[in-house]
Amino acid sequence: MIDHITPGFALDVLKILGIDGKGGEVVSTAVNVVSKRQERKDIVKIQDRELKPDEVDKIALIAPNATINIIRNYDVTSKKLVQLPQTIRGTLRCDNPSCISNSREPVEPQFSVDKRQPIRLKCYFCGHVMEREDVLRQF
Amino acid sequence: MIDHITPGFALDVLKILGIDGKGGEVVSTAVNVVSKRQERKDIVKIQDRELKPDEVDKIALIAPNATINIIRNYDVTSKKLVQLPQTIRGTLRCDNPSCISNSREPVEPQFSVDKRQPIRLKCYFCGHVMEREDVLRQF
Repeated sequence: MIDHITPGFALDVLKILGIDGKGGEVVSTAVNVVSKRQERKDIVKIQDRELKPDEVDKIALIAPNATINIIRNYDVTSKKLVQLPQTIRGTLRCDNPSCISNSREPVEPQFSVDKRQPIRLKCYFCGHVMEREDVLRQF
Repeated sequence: MIDHITPGFALDVLKILGIDGKGGEVVSTAVNVVSKRQERKDIVKIQDRELKPDEVDKIALIAPNATINIIRNYDVTSKKLVQLPQTIRGTLRCDNPSCISNSREPVEPQFSVDKRQPIRLKCYFCGHVMEREDVLRQF
């Protein structure tokens, strides 16, 4: 279960995980529901699905307060907060078409993460800044 | 609440309704859950949202067994099955670029509905047939 997702972003989390329902995954989501900790929050529950590290990094970008709870036999067996990475490598493309990471050179895209909310990513190569909405478009 | 949605199609129903969470709507969804009536089903619950007739028509196209339940004070006050229309007018475009409904002529797109599942739509003007996946792409 992914809890305390930034309100309104549950469907983006599903996109990050490549879940659209057609694969038969058993999923439930709650969007903009009242939370104790925050004013509003989103929740995503997925049956039998482990999250890969790069999926967790992507979720952290749009939902930095999210917690990932593993539930077994109705009990929370593990609970941890996502962590915003300092840098993001390889998983996103720079929006600047003339950036060297978009050329044919074998250069892996790389961004430094500005942790103020909403998040901003700065390209390591060309300095181009991507806003959260630019990042969302790549999921 | 929209119940008995074809399993895996809850997110398409949200797309039809223009809901992505960013508008603050309180929404919950269940995807591929076990149902009594069907093997699996999807459910979408939305707070304080009435459905327009053309939205219900679109939902019927992808989820012909869906029921629309109005819940007030925790009680189901009304429950009705969606109905597949015989024809669809105006809300979808024909996929055939040379169809007259895609020209500058003032011709409203119109399709007859083949109710066998999954649904197929036949253009009234050029005879082009659109499959369910073609229809989904327009939502």
